[in-house]
Amino acid sequence: MSASDQTSFDRGVSFKNASLPPMGTAVVLRYSSALSYSAAFPESGSETRQEFRCPSRLAESLDDFRYEWRAIHSKSPLASFESSPMPEPSCRSVAIIGLGLLGGSVALSIRRRWPSVRLTACARSPETRALALDRAIVDEVFDRPEAAANGCDLAVIATPVNRIASLAQELAGQFPELTLTDVGSTKGGLVRELAGTTAAKQFVPAHPIAGSEKSGAEHARADLFDDKPIVITPSGEELPQHITAVTEFWRATGGRIVTMPAEQHDATLALTSHLPHLLSSLAARQITREMLALVGTGWLDTTRVAAGDADLWTAIVSENRDAILSAIEQSRSDLDTLQTIVDQGDDTALRTWLDAAKQIRQSAQT
Amino acid sequence: MSASDQTSFDRGVSFKNASLPPMGTAVVLRYSSALSYSAAFPESGSETRQEFRCPSRLAESLDDFRYEWRAIHSKSPLASFESSPMPEPSCRSVAIIGLGLLGGSVALSIRRRWPSVRLTACARSPETRALALDRAIVDEVFDRPEAAANGCDLAVIATPVNRIASLAQELAGQFPELTLTDVGSTKGGLVRELAGTTAAKQFVPAHPIAGSEKSGAEHARADLFDDKPIVITPSGEELPQHITAVTEFWRATGGRIVTMPAEQHDATLALTSHLPHLLSSLAARQITREMLALVGTGWLDTTRVAAGDADLWTAIVSENRDAILSAIEQSRSDLDTLQTIVDQGDDTALRTWLDAAKQIRQSAQT
Repeated sequence: MSASDQTSFDRGVSFKNASLPPMGTAVVLRYSSALSYSAAFPESGSETRQEFRCPSRLAESLDDFRYEWRAIHSKSPLASFESSPMPEPSCRSVAIIGLGLLGGSVALSIRRRWPSVRLTACARSPETRALALDRAIVDEVFDRPEAAANGCDLAVIATPVNRIASLAQELAGQFPELTLTDVGSTKGGLVRELAGTTAAKQFVPAHPIAGSEKSGAEHARADLFDDKPIVITPSGEELPQHITAVTEFWRATGGRIVTMPAEQHDATLALTSHLPHLLSSLAARQITREMLALVGTGWLDTTRVAAGDADLWTAIVSENRDAILSAIEQSRSDLDTLQTIVDQGDDTALRTWLDAAKQIRQSAQT
Repeated sequence: MSASDQTSFDRGVSFKNASLPPMGTAVVLRYSSALSYSAAFPESGSETRQEFRCPSRLAESLDDFRYEWRAIHSKSPLASFESSPMPEPSCRSVAIIGLGLLGGSVALSIRRRWPSVRLTACARSPETRALALDRAIVDEVFDRPEAAANGCDLAVIATPVNRIASLAQELAGQFPELTLTDVGSTKGGLVRELAGTTAAKQFVPAHPIAGSEKSGAEHARADLFDDKPIVITPSGEELPQHITAVTEFWRATGGRIVTMPAEQHDATLALTSHLPHLLSSLAARQITREMLALVGTGWLDTTRVAAGDADLWTAIVSENRDAILSAIEQSRSDLDTLQTIVDQGDDTALRTWLDAAKQIRQSAQT
């Protein structure tokens, strides 16, 4: 991006160049400190970059934008406004199979970066299909996966994990050119199930590590994957063009790509995601409704994910049972250690036990 | 508050009455939805009330305030601005013994509601004493508790829990008129230790359920206690005037008062706060540094409190050992149940197990 491309907000007045970037180019908005925006704008953050396409997301609300930004700018000297060429999409049409929080967010994030790509979706419920069209999450919706995938370059299977393998085989059987990927939280079982099938050539397993305790397309967000890890776990059977297409696709959602074997992914996620979820549920289960009046932010944060969808998590645990059992066993052994320490009143050992947790947690914040 | 007292922002221009409330009155700012403010303003929330005193917190930054509010107001029709008489303080001078996150926040919240009250503090470190004066958290600081409490009506002991009882006895011995309270997370041991002493007449145990994984006066906030439960656990030995003074004092911090016996408090807090903290630490301890690249918001939320001060939590566990051991035993038994369910692949039982957690967690959100 050259300096001459730069369009900055002038303090309290308007853009430095007194004009918007050309329609159809991407705009990058950088800002620092906690600010407020209209709904189209990113959440507050430090030095975050957010891209919009002119005019679909920015120019339509430009009056609001200029208005808010004027007020905010005096507190935020780092605010700037840049334009850059939009990256070329690596596919022309994408089907989203399953329109929940993740499927909807995939659609919105791709729409943001690659607005020319045609988006179709398959959703089982008429309400979700209506919502998807009302909010323009996708261009067209269907009630059958094959109808959504027909004529598409790439399909993302965003259903619960226990339905991914059979859908991948059905779609690969019907569409031999289709690139396939998914959003499933567990990968080993899927890779084993597809091993040696036609689908294994077309299907590149992926797991975007992003989510919310809220489910459903109504909570979908274009920025859900921004700077989040997206783990790709190739089986080794995939044709190279599918790996390239899937990698470019996930990068366009805003995530950062991490590649590792499926088994390593599952063992890691059992400890970084599945066990924490179960411990969060465990903490929530110990209290009665009467005690809710005394919970503080500690309990609320620790148990937040326990409000997640029970069906979804049942499927995740079922798919990654062995790794989760190992994680439970490991944590149970550590809980035994803690119990002994507390029972013996060994404050030195307790401080060491707590401090090890503090060290690892603080490392994640930096 | 009569209608004529009301001073509202008019859409995008100025206050309805075109003037500020009289200097020295309290100002109540009500707002809804996520907004941005200057640093003096509360965090975003829904229908939150926040009081400021004119002109110290509001009028000094009035230009900014009007500026931001204008921009924001069109999105927030509930924004309004009211003035009301400031409530009379029930004491003239307050000593804060121990200036950490809680002690500092007590000072700031009392300053906000009762600006005429003289505030003194005792802090062991010269850095904290300098900070307290630099930021005007209190009016005067000392390195000894007696020096801070001398001449005060009320003292708040805001040290780690294991030092509260001896400090209460020292201060009660020297100042027979002094009302005493504390911020300790455990209450039973304290009540037992003070039973039958002179201090038990003056000391009204309290536990504001508010905090952060951040410690130190530098993170103190005037709104830390707003709408948070403040548990008062009288032993039965207190003189009535001290109970009245402590209740009014804590109400002035913005919290809501809950009264219960110390033993009930400790058993409840073991389950609503101490066990969740330990489970949060447990979750953090299971992963290696290499795995940090794959943690998502679930792990980050679940383990947030594990970043808390290890010394502080060692003292809390030590003070509430019996109730915490019961809580650990209860959770261990539930973890055994979970392990059996996962091992047997009993998806129906797992869904029920997860759903019970979801139900209790969702009850807390409403």
